[in-house]
Amino acid sequence: MVLAHLTWEEVDALDRETVVLIPTGSLEQHGPHLPMFTDSLLVTAVAEEIERRLPSKVLLVPTVWLGASAHHMAFAGSLTASMTGYGDVLKQIVTGLSKHRFRKFFVLNGHGGNDSLNDIALRELKETFASSVLAHKGYHEFAEATIAQVLEGPSKRIQHSCEAEVSLMMHLHPDKVRKEKLIDDGLIPEPAISSLVLTFDEVTDRGALGYATLATAEKGKAIFESAVSGAITELEAIHAGFVLRGQ
Amino acid sequence: MVLAHLTWEEVDALDRETVVLIPTGSLEQHGPHLPMFTDSLLVTAVAEEIERRLPSKVLLVPTVWLGASAHHMAFAGSLTASMTGYGDVLKQIVTGLSKHRFRKFFVLNGHGGNDSLNDIALRELKETFASSVLAHKGYHEFAEATIAQVLEGPSKRIQHSCEAEVSLMMHLHPDKVRKEKLIDDGLIPEPAISSLVLTFDEVTDRGALGYATLATAEKGKAIFESAVSGAITELEAIHAGFVLRGQ
Amino acid sequence: MVLAHLTWEEVDALDRETVVLIPTGSLEQHGPHLPMFTDSLLVTAVAEEIERRLPSKVLLVPTVWLGASAHHMAFAGSLTASMTGYGDVLKQIVTGLSKHRFRKFFVLNGHGGNDSLNDIALRELKETFASSVLAHKGYHEFAEATIAQVLEGPSKRIQHSCEAEVSLMMHLHPDKVRKEKLIDDGLIPEPAISSLVLTFDEVTDRGALGYATLATAEKGKAIFESAVSGAITELEAIHAGFVLRGQ
Amino acid sequence: MVLAHLTWEEVDALDRETVVLIPTGSLEQHGPHLPMFTDSLLVTAVAEEIERRLPSKVLLVPTVWLGASAHHMAFAGSLTASMTGYGDVLKQIVTGLSKHRFRKFFVLNGHGGNDSLNDIALRELKETFASSVLAHKGYHEFAEATIAQVLEGPSKRIQHSCEAEVSLMMHLHPDKVRKEKLIDDGLIPEPAISSLVLTFDEVTDRGALGYATLATAEKGKAIFESAVSGAITELEAIHAGFVLRGQ
Amino acid sequence: MVLAHLTWEEVDALDRETVVLIPTGSLEQHGPHLPMFTDSLLVTAVAEEIERRLPSKVLLVPTVWLGASAHHMAFAGSLTASMTGYGDVLKQIVTGLSKHRFRKFFVLNGHGGNDSLNDIALRELKETFASSVLAHKGYHEFAEATIAQVLEGPSKRIQHSCEAEVSLMMHLHPDKVRKEKLIDDGLIPEPAISSLVLTFDEVTDRGALGYATLATAEKGKAIFESAVSGAITELEAIHAGFVLRGQ
Amino acid sequence: MVLAHLTWEEVDALDRETVVLIPTGSLEQHGPHLPMFTDSLLVTAVAEEIERRLPSKVLLVPTVWLGASAHHMAFAGSLTASMTGYGDVLKQIVTGLSKHRFRKFFVLNGHGGNDSLNDIALRELKETFASSVLAHKGYHEFAEATIAQVLEGPSKRIQHSCEAEVSLMMHLHPDKVRKEKLIDDGLIPEPAISSLVLTFDEVTDRGALGYATLATAEKGKAIFESAVSGAITELEAIHAGFVLRGQ
Repeated sequence: MVLAHLTWEEVDALDRETVVLIPTGSLEQHGPHLPMFTDSLLVTAVAEEIERRLPSKVLLVPTVWLGASAHHMAFAGSLTASMTGYGDVLKQIVTGLSKHRFRKFFVLNGHGGNDSLNDIALRELKETFASSVLAHKGYHEFAEATIAQVLEGPSKRIQHSCEAEVSLMMHLHPDKVRKEKLIDDGLIPEPAISSLVLTFDEVTDRGALGYATLATAEKGKAIFESAVSGAITELEAIHAGFVLRGQ
Repeated sequence: MVLAHLTWEEVDALDRETVVLIPTGSLEQHGPHLPMFTDSLLVTAVAEEIERRLPSKVLLVPTVWLGASAHHMAFAGSLTASMTGYGDVLKQIVTGLSKHRFRKFFVLNGHGGNDSLNDIALRELKETFASSVLAHKGYHEFAEATIAQVLEGPSKRIQHSCEAEVSLMMHLHPDKVRKEKLIDDGLIPEPAISSLVLTFDEVTDRGALGYATLATAEKGKAIFESAVSGAITELEAIHAGFVLRGQ
Repeated sequence: MVLAHLTWEEVDALDRETVVLIPTGSLEQHGPHLPMFTDSLLVTAVAEEIERRLPSKVLLVPTVWLGASAHHMAFAGSLTASMTGYGDVLKQIVTGLSKHRFRKFFVLNGHGGNDSLNDIALRELKETFASSVLAHKGYHEFAEATIAQVLEGPSKRIQHSCEAEVSLMMHLHPDKVRKEKLIDDGLIPEPAISSLVLTFDEVTDRGALGYATLATAEKGKAIFESAVSGAITELEAIHAGFVLRGQ
Repeated sequence: MVLAHLTWEEVDALDRETVVLIPTGSLEQHGPHLPMFTDSLLVTAVAEEIERRLPSKVLLVPTVWLGASAHHMAFAGSLTASMTGYGDVLKQIVTGLSKHRFRKFFVLNGHGGNDSLNDIALRELKETFASSVLAHKGYHEFAEATIAQVLEGPSKRIQHSCEAEVSLMMHLHPDKVRKEKLIDDGLIPEPAISSLVLTFDEVTDRGALGYATLATAEKGKAIFESAVSGAITELEAIHAGFVLRGQ
Repeated sequence: MVLAHLTWEEVDALDRETVVLIPTGSLEQHGPHLPMFTDSLLVTAVAEEIERRLPSKVLLVPTVWLGASAHHMAFAGSLTASMTGYGDVLKQIVTGLSKHRFRKFFVLNGHGGNDSLNDIALRELKETFASSVLAHKGYHEFAEATIAQVLEGPSKRIQHSCEAEVSLMMHLHPDKVRKEKLIDDGLIPEPAISSLVLTFDEVTDRGALGYATLATAEKGKAIFESAVSGAITELEAIHAGFVLRGQ
Repeated sequence: MVLAHLTWEEVDALDRETVVLIPTGSLEQHGPHLPMFTDSLLVTAVAEEIERRLPSKVLLVPTVWLGASAHHMAFAGSLTASMTGYGDVLKQIVTGLSKHRFRKFFVLNGHGGNDSLNDIALRELKETFASSVLAHKGYHEFAEATIAQVLEGPSKRIQHSCEAEVSLMMHLHPDKVRKEKLIDDGLIPEPAISSLVLTFDEVTDRGALGYATLATAEKGKAIFESAVSGAITELEAIHAGFVLRGQ
């Protein structure tokens, strides 16, 4: 069910095992070839498809579109939530629906910069709602194997406005891809230093990171299907309940 | 222009006299006949129409859909921002676009509960961005005269899920109006006490306040047109610049 | 009763239907002719007169004199609360007296810049004290009709260090009016833009807004009486309790 | 000069070596014999007398009457600031007058519970206003020797609603002393444990601590004079400037 | 160099290319066989060994021992930082040493629960210190390959009071291992749900997660050496500076 | 008992009358002759000695080493907690152990700059844990008489990197005293102004305040013994419980 479209009487009638699905995106630069809203568009598309396939098991909340994007602020148009403000929004959504007696929540993330904050917010919520089921994961994490398989460029994982993201946009929003602007972009530290916290203007020339020129709608379709079906498996397990077994 | 759909190069090329337009809504109960997202749907419709008519003078930001709705939390499905969290989102949007050198901002509000917070947020922003032009107003304030004129019920102003809001929804989203559920609802203190801070469950039986049974799409169209054209006049004045004259 | 002058045993003996009366003012510039404390002096005078007339129904708290006056900081001497700090003071007063089992609170405001913050603070308090009666209003709102009637200048409402405020000061604190400095002052945007958030140095030459030269003690007396009697009607209704009737 | 009574032009004309004098009090129970406002009344009296004697060297701010009194909340009528809210008020006062280019500030305290917070607030302010002169002290600290000398009871220092405070009230506000209610009160831990943080209801039977029955207006006058003259010496040194000498 | 042991003149004389090394640990239950301070002891040992081998390139800060351990609070003795308080400590350390003109910082983490917070804190710091080099990583991440190689139990990665952690403690603090209490412990959700935020009492019987009975000092030594040498490689690269190369 | 070294089962078995002992120090410059960690080293030594002598009555928490030292930041290497962050750490420690049902807490302070914050934090905690016993005191306050007696310089109390502190370091950590750098240092305002909030760079030439050249290990031993035995008397009284007697 789509929360935004329901009346309070309809929400009141819902089964409280329903899993609340909260998509989190961003509004940040995606290089010269993709629009600001790419992360929000993609995670919304995945979330809406999940709700379409599992309408009675999922309660879809509107996308939290203002993500944590301070590392993109050097590029015009990018917006960023504050770290505390971002978490506050998530906490208000979960707290509000907990008042309405929902107790299963899944945050589906579409922007890497939100990961740590989703983790923190849910851990803080778990202190209050100890018996609730709280979960979060990036949509692309459900499609990791597919991504590694379909990408042709040297990078086999999702990056930023890359072969994978552009493919997804070609599949879902082809009119929003500036095909004439596609570039391969991205710098890495040499020697390799994986621990660094860097801003995007420190590691790209024009705001993208990856092999966008290799993107195709077909690859996008495969990644999308894989993300949707992976997330559905997870959500159905949460909806059904689960047992803990010895390791 | 629609910020979400632009690339950073396209934003970078915009004239900085462009007025940033920030719609603010809510996700809160609207009685048995309108959906949770009513305020967000209506203010978004007004804002998008403004952008459609003034594309080169306005930069439309996605709707801030999580409003300050604590007074509706007794009804299932309603969500509310925290007071500080709500303001933080507005401040991040204005601060972010100020970093990108925009300096004219208009918050178009669709939910009465946000009014005080929009005022506070912009006043705090004015302390930082003293030479920027900051403005906020409810879309329905531009249509006050029209509303007073077209409404047939005893109440001549917009209330909550009332003759005016239902009319707007009939005009803009007729499929989302539960026509079979339309009710007249609402309680008032007797003797009249205008200073009270009340929650909605204290003043309505089922979550609406006003004469919803009198709503028509025609009234909605008139109110919508009046709101759009009133806001456009205001935005064009802000875009053009203005002088201060002796009172 | 005046809280400041009571002992704890005397407070403990009070009826808990007593309405707690909290005046909120400011310390901010009022042009060349009125002192910084104008708002605090006026609201205190109204509140003290109310307590004098309704001693057994009202518990008067000392005036919260540090108001939200960031828009006056360009003029020497003005002080401003922070937005959060201002609300915190109100919340502590209401929370403290709620611990002492009072449950009816009325914030009487004397400074327009506090309006939104009084609204926010009381709404936040209402989340905690759901069954308490919380109310707020500007003293001048009770006198709107009288103000419109007695003012002779083109502006028929209270502004800032204007015909109305100077009249009130002439009635209540004539020694504090610099009569030789009275001016008519104030600028307005042309074309009319009502949505703007402006600082006072943007709209006045010397810090006043209105027709101070037309002020008289007689007008002040009429406004004062009207404010006091209007507030008393409201407070008595709150004290008595009230019922909710169908709209 | 009294800030509240000045216009902005008059403040603007002041010498910036003027020491801003900020009295801090409380509204808290003072046993059965003194009113809630005792601390605020006393510190205000001292501050006003200082201003009267040093009008050109001191700029008196209205008393911050909401003190940190959480330890008195078990007694009806007591109010307490939050720890952060209290500091915020002080910081806004100093910050505001620093914007108006004042740079010497003296917080005169009338309530022991504010001491630590005055210290913290001024130390935080010192981080921002490194070259300003910031000082704070309790009014009674200037009178310590006199207090020890005039008190006849076993306790030779100021406590709470005690011989010293009642004497001061008899001198300054005799009408507010409930003479028929005067008591000796107070409990101490045995064995002596000086490190404890205790609330007042843990250490007194009726809210006072000390030998109130021994109070006289004459003792009050002596303490008052000593506090005023001691504070004046300190303020004149700060006003004059001072040098640092080798220890 | 060890910051705690230096005088200010000695710090002042240091080369500002020196990398500030900040170990972060926890004080939380580690099952029946390891002490509360396990994470802090281990990360401190790694950090001190790094400093011993690279004294002129590293400035070691004392271990931040209060970690984010809310998920362990069901077990007696565990302490947890608040999410904001934890970040505040990190930010103060980096901000303080930035005032002293250091600009390279490495947070070496010893507790998984701190990961997201280290990420957030450094990203917030990067907004202020845009040209500084900020990095963070768990000590065990440098030893991942070694861990996978030496562990004999079914789990090939570090968990909690597991084969790896007990081995490290046997190597570094053998007197603190309760050998007679060693257990294999831990539950996992079935079906597999990797997205869940769970508390430790939800997933273990007695507070450990892994195969502690298989631990040996030899395995601990191998893991320790691998962590130290891996971290040193990273720190030397950061100390030397690095270039960004095309991907 | 030493919390850091216990397992959760061992903590769980402790008597809840055990007094939790929380040492608070600093990392701040101590002139040219003592290291940054002086306060933390000294308070830790006192606390550990107390635990050694009263193992069954005291539960020792690791030292909170990041103190409030903003007034030392002009000297390289000094770190400071934020005022709120410092209090947050204390509050989390007390709150955490209160969840584990401990109810007696003693904060032993080693740095004057923490005094006000310890007071505030414990008072805020007392609002939540009204029936708990909360106490705080500087270790040197237990040794005031001894300090006054053994010091030979003109100052008879502990100051900063002075005769007393250097003596303590000579007794406890002689290897960390730069004997060749010992200086007498310190400036005082003339005329005497005791109310000032000053930073250390305003009152010392090289960061010390007092007569360090007169320090000896013997004096240090006497002060240390006096502090330990004084604190033990206080802690035993708190452990035993105590009664309140009429003053």
